[in-house]
Amino acid sequence: MAKELTTREENYSQWYNDLVLKAGLAENSAVRGSMVIKPYGYAIWEKMQAALDKMFKETGHENAYFPLFIPKSFFAKEAAHVEGFAKECAVVTHYRLKNDGKGGIEVDENAKLEEELIVRPTSETIIWDTYKNWIQSYRDLPLLINQWANVVRWEMRTRLFLRTAEFLWQEGHTAHETRDEAVKEAELILNIYADFAEKWIGVPVLKGVKSPAERFAGAVETYCIEALMQDGKALQAGTSHFLGQNFAKAFDVKYLNRENKLEYVWATSWGVSTRLIGALIMAHSDDNGLVLPPKLAPIQVVIVPIFRKPEQLEEISEKAHQIMDELKAKGISVKFDNRDTYKPGYKFAEWELKGVPVRLAIGPRDLENGTVEVARRDTLEKEVLAMEDIAAKIEHLLDNIQDNIYQKALSFREEHTYKADTWDEFKQLIEQGGFVWAHWDGTAETEEKIKDETKATIRLIPIDGKEEEGTCIFTGKPSRQRVVFARSY
Amino acid sequence: MAKELTTREENYSQWYNDLVLKAGLAENSAVRGSMVIKPYGYAIWEKMQAALDKMFKETGHENAYFPLFIPKSFFAKEAAHVEGFAKECAVVTHYRLKNDGKGGIEVDENAKLEEELIVRPTSETIIWDTYKNWIQSYRDLPLLINQWANVVRWEMRTRLFLRTAEFLWQEGHTAHETRDEAVKEAELILNIYADFAEKWIGVPVLKGVKSPAERFAGAVETYCIEALMQDGKALQAGTSHFLGQNFAKAFDVKYLNRENKLEYVWATSWGVSTRLIGALIMAHSDDNGLVLPPKLAPIQVVIVPIFRKPEQLEEISEKAHQIMDELKAKGISVKFDNRDTYKPGYKFAEWELKGVPVRLAIGPRDLENGTVEVARRDTLEKEVLAMEDIAAKIEHLLDNIQDNIYQKALSFREEHTYKADTWDEFKQLIEQGGFVWAHWDGTAETEEKIKDETKATIRLIPIDGKEEEGTCIFTGKPSRQRVVFARSY
Repeated sequence: MAKELTTREENYSQWYNDLVLKAGLAENSAVRGSMVIKPYGYAIWEKMQAALDKMFKETGHENAYFPLFIPKSFFAKEAAHVEGFAKECAVVTHYRLKNDGKGGIEVDENAKLEEELIVRPTSETIIWDTYKNWIQSYRDLPLLINQWANVVRWEMRTRLFLRTAEFLWQEGHTAHETRDEAVKEAELILNIYADFAEKWIGVPVLKGVKSPAERFAGAVETYCIEALMQDGKALQAGTSHFLGQNFAKAFDVKYLNRENKLEYVWATSWGVSTRLIGALIMAHSDDNGLVLPPKLAPIQVVIVPIFRKPEQLEEISEKAHQIMDELKAKGISVKFDNRDTYKPGYKFAEWELKGVPVRLAIGPRDLENGTVEVARRDTLEKEVLAMEDIAAKIEHLLDNIQDNIYQKALSFREEHTYKADTWDEFKQLIEQGGFVWAHWDGTAETEEKIKDETKATIRLIPIDGKEEEGTCIFTGKPSRQRVVFARSY
Repeated sequence: MAKELTTREENYSQWYNDLVLKAGLAENSAVRGSMVIKPYGYAIWEKMQAALDKMFKETGHENAYFPLFIPKSFFAKEAAHVEGFAKECAVVTHYRLKNDGKGGIEVDENAKLEEELIVRPTSETIIWDTYKNWIQSYRDLPLLINQWANVVRWEMRTRLFLRTAEFLWQEGHTAHETRDEAVKEAELILNIYADFAEKWIGVPVLKGVKSPAERFAGAVETYCIEALMQDGKALQAGTSHFLGQNFAKAFDVKYLNRENKLEYVWATSWGVSTRLIGALIMAHSDDNGLVLPPKLAPIQVVIVPIFRKPEQLEEISEKAHQIMDELKAKGISVKFDNRDTYKPGYKFAEWELKGVPVRLAIGPRDLENGTVEVARRDTLEKEVLAMEDIAAKIEHLLDNIQDNIYQKALSFREEHTYKADTWDEFKQLIEQGGFVWAHWDGTAETEEKIKDETKATIRLIPIDGKEEEGTCIFTGKPSRQRVVFARSY
């Protein structure tokens, strides 16, 4: 089973696609560019949602739900936003179907909408149109709202989880009294995203801001976290935007401030999506299959019985259920794979493919000796442990695995982080893959030329980057800080 | 604040709408027929989701996610389904916008889809098209999948929560080896829905099946639960469909059975939606505002301090925080309303309007006496209790309120349940409002004539209804079981 996977070495992109399909995470649907998220993949998303939702609520955010459809005219209200989003969108033009008289159905041309509706690619416009009625005075602020929703961006080239026409995400939209408060909110969320990426997904991230060319359409500043994948390409894992008063002005949202004067509201928006599942897969998995961080694994422990005769299975089952009870009492999810239609070797390969962090195997000899074979997915190491305190041992092992995969990803990133000081060096390093820290003259022209020649973009300008005098690798003009370049997803 | 509500007596429909708006549950959006679910309303939905999701998972169901868009041709594949659903749908015809050269945007006519996409009104077709690839043999069955999603049904006359163009729901879609197993699944879910309605929403429901005319388009049998609202109208609160092999045949989904023969798969589908929030509101609330069942209340207890001087607030705060800690330790959600911009009377009215089940008021005298004033929302009764063991007392009170509102709704239903044996009696009772049990000759013609004359429909044919010889109230033809009629939402 696992052998059918293309290796990373052979073809990284094919390996990724094979893995998503064979591990049962997602698949392409009959609708161009839209995926079906299968139960195993969706269970990872549910775990991500639960953890993030808790973090948002603990910092005072509430959930709400806004319409899927946005009137076309709304997009034209914010000048920069329209450039960025009023492009590849799904457009609803009619609201009725009728029989075509030939056994099929057709669109009823009499049911044409006066104004077309756009399926939301992001919700700033409809939300700020709504906030206009919710905000009168400073007492109504801050407004800290998040929504879990589906969005659609018509993409020509799609890849499961990484880029799909429809995807699931959360989008936060907040309103504040002051510029400073809104900037703090955008930074708070960036830190939540970074924490989540590192502590849950086990992927180290760089924090920074985007160059003006890469900013969200309508933002004053876009904060982002960037992770490095095993093929040396960067993946943007979350963005948090300080929107200034742009949307408040576009939708005329003013509030009476503490000095009793009308002022435009300050805003942020921020989001992460099912793309994070792509990041999780690509950061840790190997040629045998998925490697899931224990905190996000739908099944953390699988127990495989090794038996020849039905009586043996019965005895093992008893022991297995005892272990399961102990694990469940610690909040650890566990599956007992007692299918008699498959052999242990097949099961081992299957659970390896599915990335279950810990596999226990119990055979008749283990029952005699009071032992269990424990295999960890991240290192593929096995050891035979005494059954005593087994739940505590496994709990500890899961923590250990969570930490280990993070450390491994961190080492990988460190090994693939470079400084380039000349153009030749830069081109060579970009070709090799990884994050390349280099000086840049700060102009969009240079940024674009570098992209044209190397396919590398500025992933971010580090937030706490040290000042350092230098010269732009491309133009030789002066620069005071290195920025991070990479090819990216 | 609360006084601004229209009373139920004056205008029930206006009362409902006022209440939804003033309690901050939802509002109409800029998009015709689509609502914005505000944080307080969404928090109720989240509680409903959590409870139902747990019930589904405990019975072996898993969540997944299928595309929002469905190719138009899919609807034509199941003959009955197309009649029912290929009507008032949102149709996506284009996938790109462009600048119109006048500062606005317009649909790019060059980006017309070859086949139009329908925004899902329900997902049987896209899901069965997917299941075709997932099911080969009996080993792949049963397939027990649920999805939490938004759906769109273009409605001409909409009402917040009860009927909106876009709404949120869950839709289960299961596949089985045998007819019997599928029927059992449909019944299992019906019982889950009924349990949820009674134990969580606190609304008693009748269980039954729909008449052929009221069946889901494409179903062999539609099971349903029906609740009675305070205006005497029925509300369908959930449906579970036994789909036979209709969708398996339409999408050619066969499996190799245990006798190694190819057979069509048996199916069910089932769903409840944000409409349940409408049922919750209409079943319990009064002229002062919402009455929320404690199990679904976003805030179960509110503490209002009564004070004149800031020092008093400080002392009360200390006591309030102590109570909050004790309540939180019991898993009870509590809010301390320490706003100094509003007076207690205003706060009392606001929390009454918002339906918080228990309100505690603490003033300087309470601190002296070691007491607290406890007001329950359902009966509006107040009593002064000793502070000792206050958390346990409140926990008990919440259970009591949960039970009381159910009993009250049950009594209401019993008082508004009638038997009609003559046509005149029937017409008069229907006019009065309530469930009317009457004999029916079993024909669609009679059913339609009764509807035309009285606006009443057959809400359900009771599942465990006693056999009873009688004659149809309309035609006088023989009948062996009473069915339940009512006007409905």
